[in-house]
Amino acid sequence: MSASEPRQVLTPVPFDEVVVDDDFWAPRMAKNRETTLDIEYQQMQQTGRIDAFNLDWRPGMEPRPHQFWDSDVAKWIEAAGYSLATHPDPELAARVDAVIDKVVSAQQDDGYLNVYFTVVEPQKRWQNLRDMHELYCAGHMMEAAVAHFRATGKRKLLDAMCRYADYIDSVFGDEEDKRPGTPGHEEIELALVKLYEVTGEERYLKLSEFFLNQRGRTPSVFQLERPDEPYEAAPGYHQDHLPVREQTTAEGHSVRAMYLYSAMADVAGKLSDTDLLRACERLWDNTTLKRMYVTGGIGSTREGERFTRDYDLPNETAYAETCAAIGLVFFATRMVQLTGDGKYADVMELALYNGTISGVSLNGSGFFYVNPLESAGGHHRQDWFGCACCPPNIARLIASLGGYIYSRADDAAYVHLYVQGQAELEVAGHKVVLKQQTRYPWEDTVALSVRPDRPVTFSLRLRVPGWCSVAQLSVDGRPVPMPHVEKGYIHIDREWTGEETVELVMPMRVQRLEAHPKVKADAGCVALQRGPVIFCLEQIDNGVDLHQMLLPRDAHLSAEFRPDMLGGVVTLTGDALVADESDWQGILYRPEAARLRPATLTAVPYCVWDNREPGQMRVWIRSS
Amino acid sequence: MSASEPRQVLTPVPFDEVVVDDDFWAPRMAKNRETTLDIEYQQMQQTGRIDAFNLDWRPGMEPRPHQFWDSDVAKWIEAAGYSLATHPDPELAARVDAVIDKVVSAQQDDGYLNVYFTVVEPQKRWQNLRDMHELYCAGHMMEAAVAHFRATGKRKLLDAMCRYADYIDSVFGDEEDKRPGTPGHEEIELALVKLYEVTGEERYLKLSEFFLNQRGRTPSVFQLERPDEPYEAAPGYHQDHLPVREQTTAEGHSVRAMYLYSAMADVAGKLSDTDLLRACERLWDNTTLKRMYVTGGIGSTREGERFTRDYDLPNETAYAETCAAIGLVFFATRMVQLTGDGKYADVMELALYNGTISGVSLNGSGFFYVNPLESAGGHHRQDWFGCACCPPNIARLIASLGGYIYSRADDAAYVHLYVQGQAELEVAGHKVVLKQQTRYPWEDTVALSVRPDRPVTFSLRLRVPGWCSVAQLSVDGRPVPMPHVEKGYIHIDREWTGEETVELVMPMRVQRLEAHPKVKADAGCVALQRGPVIFCLEQIDNGVDLHQMLLPRDAHLSAEFRPDMLGGVVTLTGDALVADESDWQGILYRPEAARLRPATLTAVPYCVWDNREPGQMRVWIRSS
Repeated sequence: MSASEPRQVLTPVPFDEVVVDDDFWAPRMAKNRETTLDIEYQQMQQTGRIDAFNLDWRPGMEPRPHQFWDSDVAKWIEAAGYSLATHPDPELAARVDAVIDKVVSAQQDDGYLNVYFTVVEPQKRWQNLRDMHELYCAGHMMEAAVAHFRATGKRKLLDAMCRYADYIDSVFGDEEDKRPGTPGHEEIELALVKLYEVTGEERYLKLSEFFLNQRGRTPSVFQLERPDEPYEAAPGYHQDHLPVREQTTAEGHSVRAMYLYSAMADVAGKLSDTDLLRACERLWDNTTLKRMYVTGGIGSTREGERFTRDYDLPNETAYAETCAAIGLVFFATRMVQLTGDGKYADVMELALYNGTISGVSLNGSGFFYVNPLESAGGHHRQDWFGCACCPPNIARLIASLGGYIYSRADDAAYVHLYVQGQAELEVAGHKVVLKQQTRYPWEDTVALSVRPDRPVTFSLRLRVPGWCSVAQLSVDGRPVPMPHVEKGYIHIDREWTGEETVELVMPMRVQRLEAHPKVKADAGCVALQRGPVIFCLEQIDNGVDLHQMLLPRDAHLSAEFRPDMLGGVVTLTGDALVADESDWQGILYRPEAARLRPATLTAVPYCVWDNREPGQMRVWIRSS
Repeated sequence: MSASEPRQVLTPVPFDEVVVDDDFWAPRMAKNRETTLDIEYQQMQQTGRIDAFNLDWRPGMEPRPHQFWDSDVAKWIEAAGYSLATHPDPELAARVDAVIDKVVSAQQDDGYLNVYFTVVEPQKRWQNLRDMHELYCAGHMMEAAVAHFRATGKRKLLDAMCRYADYIDSVFGDEEDKRPGTPGHEEIELALVKLYEVTGEERYLKLSEFFLNQRGRTPSVFQLERPDEPYEAAPGYHQDHLPVREQTTAEGHSVRAMYLYSAMADVAGKLSDTDLLRACERLWDNTTLKRMYVTGGIGSTREGERFTRDYDLPNETAYAETCAAIGLVFFATRMVQLTGDGKYADVMELALYNGTISGVSLNGSGFFYVNPLESAGGHHRQDWFGCACCPPNIARLIASLGGYIYSRADDAAYVHLYVQGQAELEVAGHKVVLKQQTRYPWEDTVALSVRPDRPVTFSLRLRVPGWCSVAQLSVDGRPVPMPHVEKGYIHIDREWTGEETVELVMPMRVQRLEAHPKVKADAGCVALQRGPVIFCLEQIDNGVDLHQMLLPRDAHLSAEFRPDMLGGVVTLTGDALVADESDWQGILYRPEAARLRPATLTAVPYCVWDNREPGQMRVWIRSS
């Protein structure tokens, strides 16, 4: 362990101290509360996931509990917890309590809690950490417990999960009477840090660090646990190819990777572990500068749901699992808190407005597991999945959105995201209410009122998004021509008397993005971005085969808010060209004539695609 | 059966009456004779394919004969037969005779001849026509027999195969004492026509027609042969989705399809079956106007080695099996003979100069099974394949190349391909020697001397390739400004005294081809063609990632013959642009700047790619 540099710089203002009251997120959070949480509960009931905690399954019965069912229920409890914190709902609260009663009733005397390994393969507890999601399920239930406790103050699940954590801590460790091991699907590492934060129990933090340090050993702990089975650490599917502090490239299953890196960032901050922070920075750079879609999606291939190689970002066959983009948000927010650097918040914002929420339909009841950037028309949201990680994951993200907006430091308040609403936070020993008025992400202006309980001096730090080249600031109507910007944040250091209003204007040009030349899939194409929103073409708006649409370099693109469309979105329109098919009768190849005819291009936000009639979709548009 | 329209218009001048003496094909034919036939023989020896005809395999021995081994040996005999016809070689002749002795020794008393179903599963003869290649192997051995007989006059294999055909004819048929059935992999249908041609035995022709007519029945003959196994005719893998006369789209396994369509054309011609000819025309149009690569390759996907859907022609994942392009040549040449229409010869030429011969390396010892139009650098020719259909197939095609060049009709001589050398043919009752002097496909001029045994009037018909917009003709040095062109052939109707020389100039501009706008994979790209040759970029000549190379619309492309390169080829060079990567440090996406730098593009003929150091390859070049 190295010097003390990577102490946690910022503390997030938690979701339960933030009100979201805008036109973009608030309706999504309402749909999440009113529809998604309910249908997910119904799905989990119908598929037996909840009743499985009754432990009354016997061999031969169908359905047989699956090794990751516990985690689906856990993420639902977590999502419901976040929702209850901001929107009390006695019916939902009672439903959650009933589920928690069931969950806790399944806990064994020694603290162990896992349906599959209690009723299906009880003799195999802890024998296949690599594949069987045992510690993964434990981690999700710990996150659920922390969320529910924070939301409601109720300790039942939290106490149960502390008992479980204590038991796990008695099994795994470096000590002689404990065994090696680490999860094949990371998750418990970051959950233990949350449990540490809420309980102050340092053993949980050390156990998290232990699990991190178990990766990349020679021989691998996964080889040790089943010496007779072949195991190849090298492809990195389980991020076991190198010790975590030596990893340099984002490898393997992308959700696993993000959960690991998030935990690494947590532990780096809590234990001031510089080597671990350096590894996080390297893995961040590799992920976001070489292996990330322009939507914030990650994971280029269905095979192994994984990262492939630098700049390999195929659009139609992209995997870009909803859970992976959510994991990137988790990693990003931790890096923001650790460093105060806005570059992390840029990616967090990108993923939040694009590649995560594409995972759920506007009506809250359809889900993408896979989020391609191009579709021939056959990719659609589903009601549910056999492996149902994504639906409750997007539910917990949306329910906790408030927690990503603000942070505080000793003498500073940070605004990472522009979302109408307010937060109450303690800065410099005083309560300060920050209130945002904005139509972001559709409009470019944010009015922020700062209301401390009495006059107090602190630094207000407003993120200037990476997509914004010149932000205009005024304080109380007086322009601040050259505001002080550091690491992507405007610093406004002054005494705040309780009267001040800050206005930030981030002009939203429509931007044509190009990808690094090494990205073959995007060669000759542009993606359209306005503010934090990435756009796409849908066939319903454009008629023609989307690969035929060509956007001339000098095309004017205009943005218009369409209240009637897709829940109210900005759309982009512009003059484009499409191939003239009229003279192609009986010809497959011919000397280039490139006869084109004018057409109007209409683009909609990527996050709302596939909410109308089925058809082609395309993010990267051919450009000339 | 319908009117008599589709009688065979042309008769090909067979390979053994043609001398090929040029710089393009003759060296390939020599390499085929001297290297390919030998290493294929060695491979078949080493893998047990030849000794399998000893019938001494017993259960438990390795290797176990495979159900398609017979066909590999057959195609090798066929190729060797063609070679012996034009280049007598006592050593090869003896080797072939020895193999034929073995093959014939394996024939059963009833005429049956198949290694697998004699020694491995003797109880399963004719039980799984769909999957087990039994009739397919029979067909290839019949083709071998015909070729060997034509080449050498020796009847041993021919007589054996007639006995086999007689036996098959006693088993399969519409009569009460015979059974239904047709091969899952077509081949015997066209082989029976060849056997009919060489023997005059009409039963063989009728048996071929019977097999054709068995396809697309309800219930399918494949369902009938194994009623308990599920069978789905609809996807068309076996071209069993509709009766052959009702088929309209090229479906299923592309080699199977081409062999079927070739046999359909044969039977349409021999039996004047208009409905069958119409089906051939429809299937031809669908294949070549909607489902064919610009190289003449066909079959868009590895899954099922098959056709997919109209305009679905992905480049990197193209299957384009060598055998399928060869099958397209077979289909094309039959359509040329049936109709005298040069559009068929255009595709024949395209496939011959590009997508077929790419299947073998310049040194004659490496083989492509799959011929993609783009490679990231990992696709290379192999020494051999477990399923080794392609190596002997390309060997027999190259060895018989002379047979595709000329045809004769009652009062006409046709030149389909421009290949230096000569042919002797009978026209209007007289022997005529046609002699071509040309450096085609590298140079645009053909000098053709016409030498009848005495003055005779007939129509000399010279194909004007589809790629050539204006051909210049002169006879005895006198320009013929507006030659009479019909169905793609210049007609020169006159008395030929024995002194005349005709000169045809087909100016070879470098052409930038574009694909039909519905072909997504080629959108925004051009393929380069000069004469019949399709070009590609290889990384070794261009350095950069090939997807970064952009060919401006006004770029001048110059062609140069490079005697030192790749056995002597024309290469194309021109001014292109590539992305400037210098200012992309730490950036994955940015507002479009499209900073490009000049570069020189060098293209080589597609057929010779992957004969130097491994690297990327790309046929379709980004164009602006």
